[in-house]
Amino acid sequence: MDQKGFRRGSFHSSTSDEDMLEIAGASLDFFVADDDPPLDREVGGFSSYNGMNGTSTMMDFLEEPLPGVGTYEDFNTIDWVREKSRDRDRHREITSRSKESTWALIHSVSDAFSGWLLMLLIGLLAGSLAGLIDISAHWMTDLKEGVCLAGFWFNHEHCCWKSHTTFTDRDQCLEWRSWSQLILGHGEIKTILSGFIIRGYLGKWTLIIKTITLVLAVSSGLSLGKEGPLVHVACCCGNILCHLFTKYRKNEAKRREVLSAAAAAGVSVAFGAPIGGVLFSLEEVSYYFPLKTLWRSFFAALVAAFTLRSINPFGNSRLVLFYVEFHMPWHLLELVPFILLGIFGGLWGAFFIRSNIAWCRRRKTTKLGRYPVLEVLVVTAITALLAFPNEYTRMSTSELISELFNDCGILDSSKLCEYVNDFNSTKGDDLPDRAAGPGVYTAMWQLALALIMKVFITIFTFGMKVPSGLFIPSMAVGAIAGRLLGVAVEQLAFYHHDWAIFSGWCSQGADCITPGLYAMVGAAACLGGVTRMTVSLVVIMFELTGGLEYIVPLMAAAMTSKWVADAIGREGIYDAHIRLNGYPFLEAKEEFSHKTLAMDVMRPRRSDPPLTIITQDSMTVEDVETIINETTYSGYPVVVSRESQRLVGFVLRRDLIISIENARKKQDGIVSTSVIYFTDHSPPLPPSSPSMLKLRSILDLSPFTVTDQTPMEIVVDIFRKLGLRQCLVTHNGKLLGIITKKDVLKHIAQLANQDPDSILFN
Amino acid sequence: MDQKGFRRGSFHSSTSDEDMLEIAGASLDFFVADDDPPLDREVGGFSSYNGMNGTSTMMDFLEEPLPGVGTYEDFNTIDWVREKSRDRDRHREITSRSKESTWALIHSVSDAFSGWLLMLLIGLLAGSLAGLIDISAHWMTDLKEGVCLAGFWFNHEHCCWKSHTTFTDRDQCLEWRSWSQLILGHGEIKTILSGFIIRGYLGKWTLIIKTITLVLAVSSGLSLGKEGPLVHVACCCGNILCHLFTKYRKNEAKRREVLSAAAAAGVSVAFGAPIGGVLFSLEEVSYYFPLKTLWRSFFAALVAAFTLRSINPFGNSRLVLFYVEFHMPWHLLELVPFILLGIFGGLWGAFFIRSNIAWCRRRKTTKLGRYPVLEVLVVTAITALLAFPNEYTRMSTSELISELFNDCGILDSSKLCEYVNDFNSTKGDDLPDRAAGPGVYTAMWQLALALIMKVFITIFTFGMKVPSGLFIPSMAVGAIAGRLLGVAVEQLAFYHHDWAIFSGWCSQGADCITPGLYAMVGAAACLGGVTRMTVSLVVIMFELTGGLEYIVPLMAAAMTSKWVADAIGREGIYDAHIRLNGYPFLEAKEEFSHKTLAMDVMRPRRSDPPLTIITQDSMTVEDVETIINETTYSGYPVVVSRESQRLVGFVLRRDLIISIENARKKQDGIVSTSVIYFTDHSPPLPPSSPSMLKLRSILDLSPFTVTDQTPMEIVVDIFRKLGLRQCLVTHNGKLLGIITKKDVLKHIAQLANQDPDSILFN
Repeated sequence: MDQKGFRRGSFHSSTSDEDMLEIAGASLDFFVADDDPPLDREVGGFSSYNGMNGTSTMMDFLEEPLPGVGTYEDFNTIDWVREKSRDRDRHREITSRSKESTWALIHSVSDAFSGWLLMLLIGLLAGSLAGLIDISAHWMTDLKEGVCLAGFWFNHEHCCWKSHTTFTDRDQCLEWRSWSQLILGHGEIKTILSGFIIRGYLGKWTLIIKTITLVLAVSSGLSLGKEGPLVHVACCCGNILCHLFTKYRKNEAKRREVLSAAAAAGVSVAFGAPIGGVLFSLEEVSYYFPLKTLWRSFFAALVAAFTLRSINPFGNSRLVLFYVEFHMPWHLLELVPFILLGIFGGLWGAFFIRSNIAWCRRRKTTKLGRYPVLEVLVVTAITALLAFPNEYTRMSTSELISELFNDCGILDSSKLCEYVNDFNSTKGDDLPDRAAGPGVYTAMWQLALALIMKVFITIFTFGMKVPSGLFIPSMAVGAIAGRLLGVAVEQLAFYHHDWAIFSGWCSQGADCITPGLYAMVGAAACLGGVTRMTVSLVVIMFELTGGLEYIVPLMAAAMTSKWVADAIGREGIYDAHIRLNGYPFLEAKEEFSHKTLAMDVMRPRRSDPPLTIITQDSMTVEDVETIINETTYSGYPVVVSRESQRLVGFVLRRDLIISIENARKKQDGIVSTSVIYFTDHSPPLPPSSPSMLKLRSILDLSPFTVTDQTPMEIVVDIFRKLGLRQCLVTHNGKLLGIITKKDVLKHIAQLANQDPDSILFN
Repeated sequence: MDQKGFRRGSFHSSTSDEDMLEIAGASLDFFVADDDPPLDREVGGFSSYNGMNGTSTMMDFLEEPLPGVGTYEDFNTIDWVREKSRDRDRHREITSRSKESTWALIHSVSDAFSGWLLMLLIGLLAGSLAGLIDISAHWMTDLKEGVCLAGFWFNHEHCCWKSHTTFTDRDQCLEWRSWSQLILGHGEIKTILSGFIIRGYLGKWTLIIKTITLVLAVSSGLSLGKEGPLVHVACCCGNILCHLFTKYRKNEAKRREVLSAAAAAGVSVAFGAPIGGVLFSLEEVSYYFPLKTLWRSFFAALVAAFTLRSINPFGNSRLVLFYVEFHMPWHLLELVPFILLGIFGGLWGAFFIRSNIAWCRRRKTTKLGRYPVLEVLVVTAITALLAFPNEYTRMSTSELISELFNDCGILDSSKLCEYVNDFNSTKGDDLPDRAAGPGVYTAMWQLALALIMKVFITIFTFGMKVPSGLFIPSMAVGAIAGRLLGVAVEQLAFYHHDWAIFSGWCSQGADCITPGLYAMVGAAACLGGVTRMTVSLVVIMFELTGGLEYIVPLMAAAMTSKWVADAIGREGIYDAHIRLNGYPFLEAKEEFSHKTLAMDVMRPRRSDPPLTIITQDSMTVEDVETIINETTYSGYPVVVSRESQRLVGFVLRRDLIISIENARKKQDGIVSTSVIYFTDHSPPLPPSSPSMLKLRSILDLSPFTVTDQTPMEIVVDIFRKLGLRQCLVTHNGKLLGIITKKDVLKHIAQLANQDPDSILFN
């Protein structure tokens, strides 16, 4: 059927709910895209998660005489133009009524402010949940090591804090007992449960489950981050809170605005970077982002960040996840190693995306996909086995990154800071470059091993049936590489400060190389290579350091990394996963660069039977019902007559079915031979004929049309920017065919030498 | 003519070049809008400024067989869809050729990087110019007061710095002699010259003139800022540098991308806020901003900022104009005064916009407009008279703002910091709230007077024939109000710390109120009220302070101010000026909320003569020439036949004239009776008839069409998002009329109860 003509809104796939979650954590950010039309299955998928906006809610969607007209079935693309028109109508009505009475005026004002109130609530809820997750994950991470005798709910730090011991012998505080002291074993098993629970509870209570499992997953030590799931959690909050306000409950386009802002709030709490969060939402989530949304997203992101800060889960009053403060400026020559890190980041990004996609495809196509729990078990076991011996993989990834970013002070006691101190040359707080001590060398070896392990284990971890983000593992890989390079350059400068390249800026006894900065630049490079973020990446990093000084190195690395990675493969990890899963997402970032015309893409193709059409004033109820039963298209063009083929409008299948059913029930004299009129004025009927059915009210009189000679690049542009579901194709004023979003996506896949049927909409 | 049918690209106005510059400084940022179609006269206006991309350059615009086809006349709206298509074609060609030879590959790579190179150059040039302007303006400001005996090119600070005197008696350094010591008088006269020179040199060398006059204007002491002109200067750099690269020289759409980035660089150097600059460019300059541009703008902004920093015009190695560091957190209760400041900012913004627009309209319509030099003279004289007696208006506005933002330290010797010290309760650097000394009271009075003066003088200054920005004066007004309120609250807290509202957070001897923060919040509020900026405003302020701590107060004030100001009048100052000058800018931020249809807007109207059309295969050269001579429309729809009125395509007047002229000259047998064919295949002609003219190549086969029933809100959306010049209107497949951007703008003006003919395109 699909080959013969057009067919919209029938993207019912065989993918199970589990598959939907597979990338939900990491790339849900895409599915809340703002004014682009990427949401097909997600609308349905999303609602089936929390069970709150299912079909029953959908039914009272419009306050129109005929319930059901103008609503969507599950798994349908929403029509942005229509949704926005409806919201404008609603707004217009409220505004005009507001002049009539005080009550209506209050209603109008409260309607205008409901958006802000919603943002406030989202910010508060997302911030609180993030705080809860942080605290619980922290506690559970430590629970792997031991338990606090003074109270099991304290984590290691709080436990020892209460015992009033000093910082230096914190690790030796008496109240804290490690598991090896109490019982043997460790807590990774929780993760397996988490994978299990996710499957058991899918389709409902996503928010709660996500929140709980995220705690488990983050604390488990798997190579994954929490920012993706936090975005998902924030979007759940947004979706649930939308139900409090009619304005958002009843309009799919408005709701997407809210979800967009919620995504920004999610990133904001994941990193404590509200501006970066908004830019992430702008850069990664959606191509088209109305300015009103920008401002509201910023508000939600800020509220979330400050809520999180007032909860203070890290116990340091800091907003950001990794607070760094460097003392030394960088030198222009250091751009060379920074660009090297950028190249490494780009290569790693491209390698990771290819391997991960290949592995995920294998999982989809082979038996492996049938045992998600087993997979999680095995990966967790291997991770645990490989990670436990090495202290840098044993600690939580966030801690690892923090330690790598850290600029060694005089009092730092970690292995990474075990330098040979020469107190003669020390002036105040400024430490000169020093020779590395044995601790640093040990740390280097361990870090190199950790790097190799992280690189490979992340490929298998991301995409499993566990809520997972990719920021933290990517940053960890980059931070390790950066720290290694940083220490290498530092030692080179220390032992060879007489070399020409160091002359003038790195003499003996000067503090010129900051390995922590290299770690940070490396983290940015790898994150950029994997996600292809640019501005938001640099801004997030800027918010972490709080100094404009280091933007140039970060930018150089991010830019190099993006160029290198793009040269190998155009897609970022999220795009790659979207394509792997066949979501109908019309990529807005890439230019459509082929020289095909609308006539090459439209249906019917040359060998197909002609387009199914409805005439405006000559078809009977029976004729139309036959068409509805014999085809599955979700809409039909209405023409003047079969002969002229001049386009009048477009009518949706769903509206047609509802209207005919309703008329047959409630309107007298409507039988199978009644003629359906889509015209404005109907001719007087002979007295004997059955009464006619007027359906002009459900006819869309302004369908979008393009000519058959329109280049596809322009058609793609129109679909993207206006958020269309379909577009009719005419030639010299005559209706020729139809192009749906699905046709456009298939065509793009075809041109990219991918099998359109197996890849899209599997 | 205009009333009878459609007419595009004929916005020739009687406005003189001076009028164009009138707001060029302040709102050029709008005219470089990115993918929105706001550029009509600016394209021409801009090119006439620097005399580099006039018609002669336009002529070799396309590498097509027929020179001239596909180019624009001056004062025409560019067609975004066509420009973008052309760029894609060019890109496709280079890419496909790159596989053929190494040389072509190098060309392809260099083409890809030319955009980045261009951004780099813009950043470097804009940063250098900004540095030059800062240094010169600083020097000239001080020149008003005196001269450095050690070398006249040193400003006051550098002069005294060189003399190795300590900071405290800096004002008493010997090398610096004030004019009152040397000669009497002051340098405001320079500004009048600047106004004069601008007029004398208009149309050429804008960049140089702007740079010089900006120095004069900023140093003159008039109530104006430099950020608007700096944006203009940066755009001039961008435009000039575009000529180095074919890619940008030959494509109007690509060039606008560059100008957009240049605007970001301009704001970046004005405030040292690169991220804020990019967001400003995003929020204020353009509705639609491709992501590639975002990243490039960021790059240009950063390069510009760092170039400026390496020039170090302020002598403090700081990137930002006003560096502030506050020590104390704010209390939640302080949000009340912050919101009060927001209300003040909103009221002031609305008041300023109304008064300023009223005054500018008066200037346009009365004799006043004929004496711009006299006006500048008078305003300068009044400013000088009023400003000189008060030390807070005598100093440069930037210095004033710096001083108001400043948190009084123990060593600050300025009047504003003349508190009664009680050294018993001082602990370390932390100063408690203290009783105000006589100096503070004097300062309060002077500031109150300065506030009143600034409020009124700015209304008359902005819009004069002087390059002027509005950021600094707005911020000054807000900062004064904020500081006044801040000191009031501080003294209230000091004398009444036993009141319930202060209990718990502001006990005796505590440092709880920071008047500098109030000044900053007030500045943000007033700036927000005038410009209606939101996110970019907060981010710029965030970059100034460098701490996320103070974002919430800033945001609260900015939000309140915007709401208050919006409630009084929807337009920001830039929009108001654009409307005042009748520029064809399709406002992207406001929703079109009227319920009219395409048929109400399209031409011909009911009483008009029918639409001028061309048939595809029955008109002779003479017929077409008659149409061209009798109408002034810049394009004509081509239909199948007069009877059927089915649309085939759209042909541009300019292309038609050039093609016919060319054919008459070069093609044998083309006479007035030759039939013009727009069809693909032409019928065999009888041997006696004159040879035919085939013009399918100049026919646009994919004109945009909407049906007559399409709501105007959707039509406006299409025009905005796709950047159309015109759109054809059909009914049941038959051509009915045409809607041009001008029609849309006129319609909007009409619905807003404004006279469409007198206001738009005067």
